[in-house]
Amino acid sequence: MTLRIGFLGYRFMGRAHANALARLPMFFPDTPETERRILIGRDEAALDDAADRLGFTETATGWRDAIDDVDVFYNLAPNFLHAEPAIEALDAGVHVLCEKPLADSLDDAERMATAARESDATAAVAFNYRFLPAVARAKRLVEAGKLGEIRAFRGRYLQDWLVDPTAPWSWRLDADLAGSGALGDLGAHTLDLARYFVGDVTRVSGHTRTFVDERPDPEGDGTQSVTVDDATTAQLAFENGATGTVEVSRVAPGRKNDHRIELDGTEGALRWSLERPNELLVRWPDSRGFERELVTEADDPYADHWWPPGHVLGWEHAVVHENYEFLRAIAADDPYDPDFEAGLAVQRLLDAVQRAAADGGWVEP
Amino acid sequence: MTLRIGFLGYRFMGRAHANALARLPMFFPDTPETERRILIGRDEAALDDAADRLGFTETATGWRDAIDDVDVFYNLAPNFLHAEPAIEALDAGVHVLCEKPLADSLDDAERMATAARESDATAAVAFNYRFLPAVARAKRLVEAGKLGEIRAFRGRYLQDWLVDPTAPWSWRLDADLAGSGALGDLGAHTLDLARYFVGDVTRVSGHTRTFVDERPDPEGDGTQSVTVDDATTAQLAFENGATGTVEVSRVAPGRKNDHRIELDGTEGALRWSLERPNELLVRWPDSRGFERELVTEADDPYADHWWPPGHVLGWEHAVVHENYEFLRAIAADDPYDPDFEAGLAVQRLLDAVQRAAADGGWVEP
Amino acid sequence: MTLRIGFLGYRFMGRAHANALARLPMFFPDTPETERRILIGRDEAALDDAADRLGFTETATGWRDAIDDVDVFYNLAPNFLHAEPAIEALDAGVHVLCEKPLADSLDDAERMATAARESDATAAVAFNYRFLPAVARAKRLVEAGKLGEIRAFRGRYLQDWLVDPTAPWSWRLDADLAGSGALGDLGAHTLDLARYFVGDVTRVSGHTRTFVDERPDPEGDGTQSVTVDDATTAQLAFENGATGTVEVSRVAPGRKNDHRIELDGTEGALRWSLERPNELLVRWPDSRGFERELVTEADDPYADHWWPPGHVLGWEHAVVHENYEFLRAIAADDPYDPDFEAGLAVQRLLDAVQRAAADGGWVEP
Amino acid sequence: MTLRIGFLGYRFMGRAHANALARLPMFFPDTPETERRILIGRDEAALDDAADRLGFTETATGWRDAIDDVDVFYNLAPNFLHAEPAIEALDAGVHVLCEKPLADSLDDAERMATAARESDATAAVAFNYRFLPAVARAKRLVEAGKLGEIRAFRGRYLQDWLVDPTAPWSWRLDADLAGSGALGDLGAHTLDLARYFVGDVTRVSGHTRTFVDERPDPEGDGTQSVTVDDATTAQLAFENGATGTVEVSRVAPGRKNDHRIELDGTEGALRWSLERPNELLVRWPDSRGFERELVTEADDPYADHWWPPGHVLGWEHAVVHENYEFLRAIAADDPYDPDFEAGLAVQRLLDAVQRAAADGGWVEP
Repeated sequence: MTLRIGFLGYRFMGRAHANALARLPMFFPDTPETERRILIGRDEAALDDAADRLGFTETATGWRDAIDDVDVFYNLAPNFLHAEPAIEALDAGVHVLCEKPLADSLDDAERMATAARESDATAAVAFNYRFLPAVARAKRLVEAGKLGEIRAFRGRYLQDWLVDPTAPWSWRLDADLAGSGALGDLGAHTLDLARYFVGDVTRVSGHTRTFVDERPDPEGDGTQSVTVDDATTAQLAFENGATGTVEVSRVAPGRKNDHRIELDGTEGALRWSLERPNELLVRWPDSRGFERELVTEADDPYADHWWPPGHVLGWEHAVVHENYEFLRAIAADDPYDPDFEAGLAVQRLLDAVQRAAADGGWVEP
Repeated sequence: MTLRIGFLGYRFMGRAHANALARLPMFFPDTPETERRILIGRDEAALDDAADRLGFTETATGWRDAIDDVDVFYNLAPNFLHAEPAIEALDAGVHVLCEKPLADSLDDAERMATAARESDATAAVAFNYRFLPAVARAKRLVEAGKLGEIRAFRGRYLQDWLVDPTAPWSWRLDADLAGSGALGDLGAHTLDLARYFVGDVTRVSGHTRTFVDERPDPEGDGTQSVTVDDATTAQLAFENGATGTVEVSRVAPGRKNDHRIELDGTEGALRWSLERPNELLVRWPDSRGFERELVTEADDPYADHWWPPGHVLGWEHAVVHENYEFLRAIAADDPYDPDFEAGLAVQRLLDAVQRAAADGGWVEP
Repeated sequence: MTLRIGFLGYRFMGRAHANALARLPMFFPDTPETERRILIGRDEAALDDAADRLGFTETATGWRDAIDDVDVFYNLAPNFLHAEPAIEALDAGVHVLCEKPLADSLDDAERMATAARESDATAAVAFNYRFLPAVARAKRLVEAGKLGEIRAFRGRYLQDWLVDPTAPWSWRLDADLAGSGALGDLGAHTLDLARYFVGDVTRVSGHTRTFVDERPDPEGDGTQSVTVDDATTAQLAFENGATGTVEVSRVAPGRKNDHRIELDGTEGALRWSLERPNELLVRWPDSRGFERELVTEADDPYADHWWPPGHVLGWEHAVVHENYEFLRAIAADDPYDPDFEAGLAVQRLLDAVQRAAADGGWVEP
Repeated sequence: MTLRIGFLGYRFMGRAHANALARLPMFFPDTPETERRILIGRDEAALDDAADRLGFTETATGWRDAIDDVDVFYNLAPNFLHAEPAIEALDAGVHVLCEKPLADSLDDAERMATAARESDATAAVAFNYRFLPAVARAKRLVEAGKLGEIRAFRGRYLQDWLVDPTAPWSWRLDADLAGSGALGDLGAHTLDLARYFVGDVTRVSGHTRTFVDERPDPEGDGTQSVTVDDATTAQLAFENGATGTVEVSRVAPGRKNDHRIELDGTEGALRWSLERPNELLVRWPDSRGFERELVTEADDPYADHWWPPGHVLGWEHAVVHENYEFLRAIAADDPYDPDFEAGLAVQRLLDAVQRAAADGGWVEP
């Protein structure tokens, strides 16, 4: 059986997932076969170009009809377009991988999760960083108890592409289209890893700031309003008693893609940063400082599919591994994690941080 | 004129300040002359030993009488002993340097600040990290506008000496004696640097945790209760609009003395850590990443008093420089910063974080 | 025109180049089209498997006949099999990309270079690290004079897979089959970068050591002799007056793939390591320390073909870029660098280091 | 008994040793008592100033007479003034600590070592870096077999104060006054650590370069010739079979005092740099990468004399510890290491590297 695949969206994420699908046969030969069938978008000329480049055999300008012709639907569209197509696909029994955050609002996320529960299809949310070897190894170490009980989570995700006040407006800067700014765009990843490593969050506080209120209209002479956060900080209280801090920013000079996760436990500690994705810093029990591990050994997650030890992987490999797990789960009819429940749980946290920031107190997600 | 100096306390901080006084004549010859006159403590045998070693000519077991015999009084006692001796000294016209945090409660801190305002004597609080060359250079860069306007402050101070649940109880673990735990002990430094670099804080949120509730009594077979925080996180809102995050912990495995400060501005950014105190990471305007500077050049703060470039200083030099500035201010009758107002401002923040943690909302300091 | 491609070899390097060819259409659409036509090897069963996985349409157990059926021949075989197939291919007008080192002896390398000179076909040697964005950017900076005149080159390439004395014997450990050990395997890369960045070398000294003389036979109960170096150090004198040091080792605990290049100039300096391939450390003129650059900006070499800034590449991308440049040179009939002359120049240096190590003096390459 | 001490020299090293002596009573109370008795120099006005500042009670403009009045003689003069005063002092039974390198020539070093052998006095050479806690801990680990047998030593010492071609001439740039340049000034330390960690060296090769041939006369309008090396590289063959590489430079942009030592063994590895003197990177047996240790724990060498864990020391503490060991050895009539034999052994290596560089081959030290 060959899985027929449709993508809604063909920019950054479209390229990332198309690349992933194209690489699986060579490096993960036990992945089910796939066919890049339909690429969906609005601009026909751009769409044809992209389909050609990304290896799709057909294009479509409406997602509704296209859904009927595929087995798997990748929703890579802007956040405000996540809910309807994903729900319709799931209702039609089509498997869905949806980019993060799951939705632009908690309401939509709940509707999506309901649809997923009621469907036999697999519903995945693209928290791809779980699938980097270093992050997956970190999870193994935590589950093996190497850190003892987790007492503190520190997560932050800093970028600098909005430092320049003349950087143009885009849908990512509009609350109606994106839901939130740095919080949903970057913080969704960080909050997912918080839950992945430490567990449920019982309450959050939040602090949100927009430093540049309007930005040049990319298609005109004027400006458009920025209605989302440039930067957000939050505190988390976990059910297990651990503390958490999260900070996200798109106005942090010198940080290109600095997604850092730190865990403190009763026995040990971990540190990881996306700018050095192959490295894991481990403070083992009964030792002093952190050991720098290059997570490229044959017995590290996914590593034996690629190159000999020391030959590092890049950002995109997270997406390859994610696709591998997703497609394998579909073929085996296995549960997939992170699913829409995970996406919804993160959406609750995003929503809670926004409410907390608005109200000034701690709130429950 | 030789300044006669008295110390209340002769342990870690007593040694650090005695060392500082002993080193000033050789490296800062324009410091006023000092005489280590009276060392004050309770245990006479230990006191004699310490006085001999630290170069004091006399000892005393009561601070009240001793104050009359000195020109400068260093209050290096546990927090609950900060207020009375400091106030009496100031009332008597004796200059005071008080260890941090200023007091074990906001009430005491206010009384101390009042005493300082009403006294002609100099009243200093020992936020010594301001006087490390890298921190002082960071201040210069911020004031010169190299970072533009500050948008984000990140401060954290992590240690690991309480990870071991059998580490013994001490006064630092008792709310009545210390005021707070990691928050006051470590966070006082971090909050002072927050104010030093960014300015006034308008509101804070807080989250406080105690993971080990009782610890072995160091002088008996039983245990004593831990009534202070092992770890605290906080969010800050600054008057200038910047966000701030603070995290302190004494249960962070692998962190020996990891005091980190990060600043993001509209033009540049800075990073610094106490575990590498001579290094400043600067993201200059219009550049990409951070430049690692070794702050040992002849024109760096304090550096020309010591060794040629590249010959790094240690932790203790912060205390030497602090004493230099303090004594010079006394001799010149100049204002000294950080004074008791700075100490009080930090105490308001410590108090606010505790209130916020208890009440669950943001509070004003 | 579609270039028909044949590979001799299907292990690590076979997979790396097949991956590169498979990825070019999506990310470098101006690359000439290619067809993975014939995969050549000895073990038919393994060959069929590999051909299937790597996307080849045919297999062959002899390279001679296969050469006639392809336009481009990739020689990915062990070193002792580099010369004959490459020469025959070039004689037949078939383009050749040969893995490094160019040959197992200087004689063979010279014969290969002669064949390349006399052929109209393109002859490339696989010094792939030139094509990592950070290395290519380093070259730009050097050529733009940012470092001034180069005075010192430091290169080292350390791995640890032979630390374990029970690691099995392979052809890489036999002087007749490999030519040399760590020197040719790792040092070929380092010496190529020495020449790439600094220029011709006029004399070398060398020091070679084998610490483990025999290793388990992978196909039997006994052992086989190790007749190549485990580790080698060398000094270089460059024509421009710069000094150079090179160290290579396969017995360096904790170094997985630590290829480091450092350049000191009259105005600035550079550092780079393969374990963090996306980072370039630059000491700019009139600055203090090194700035850490993430070489993922849109105007960095190759970067705009991939992902947004901060989304790092991996080891394998060096091979993708190498294939892109190689195939583009073929299609445009442009010269390709590094060609067999570059391979020969490095072979002269490898040979000179071995002679110097044997004779105990400096020798000319 | 109070040891009467005389210093020849009062600049950088004079200040460093005077500081050390001044600090010992407080932090190393078991050190024998000392009196800074006579400061010796040529310029009377400068001498008086320095004596006042460094705590000497007398001054002298000739070293011969002064020797009779002291128990311990510190020779901190330029290299060409090392031999005569040290020999006369030893002949007179006066203990000597001589700055490194031991002499400006192998002949002088041999005469000095002979004098030391024939004297009952203690003769020390100031290889102070052995006494940094991290280096001393490294030695412990090596002796405890944590690295197994050492197979490779990498040492380099890079500074940048001569990058600027207008940096003025000084005695350090004259072969007659200094013996050699970067080699003796910096490399003496590195070669001492090579011997300290790995043992005797059986042969060396060398490569020496002077990039700036003349420099401004600091006391006139003209220039003076530079007759020593700006940079030197060397290879070492150790008696135990290990390889070694050494590189020293005073023209390495961005390196302020970058003295690095790396050791590879059969079981583990170590790395250390003087720019981060408190850190030791250890690759333990059966682990992956390097653990970063902060060498400030109570059971680390010298650490318990100072501050709690995590409160780092500076460069100068090496000199304090060195003085402690030296004076304690004198008082106890214990052997002191590194003594003049160690100084001579390094001088043989310096001489051998120079001969090798001149002759172009490997030479025996």
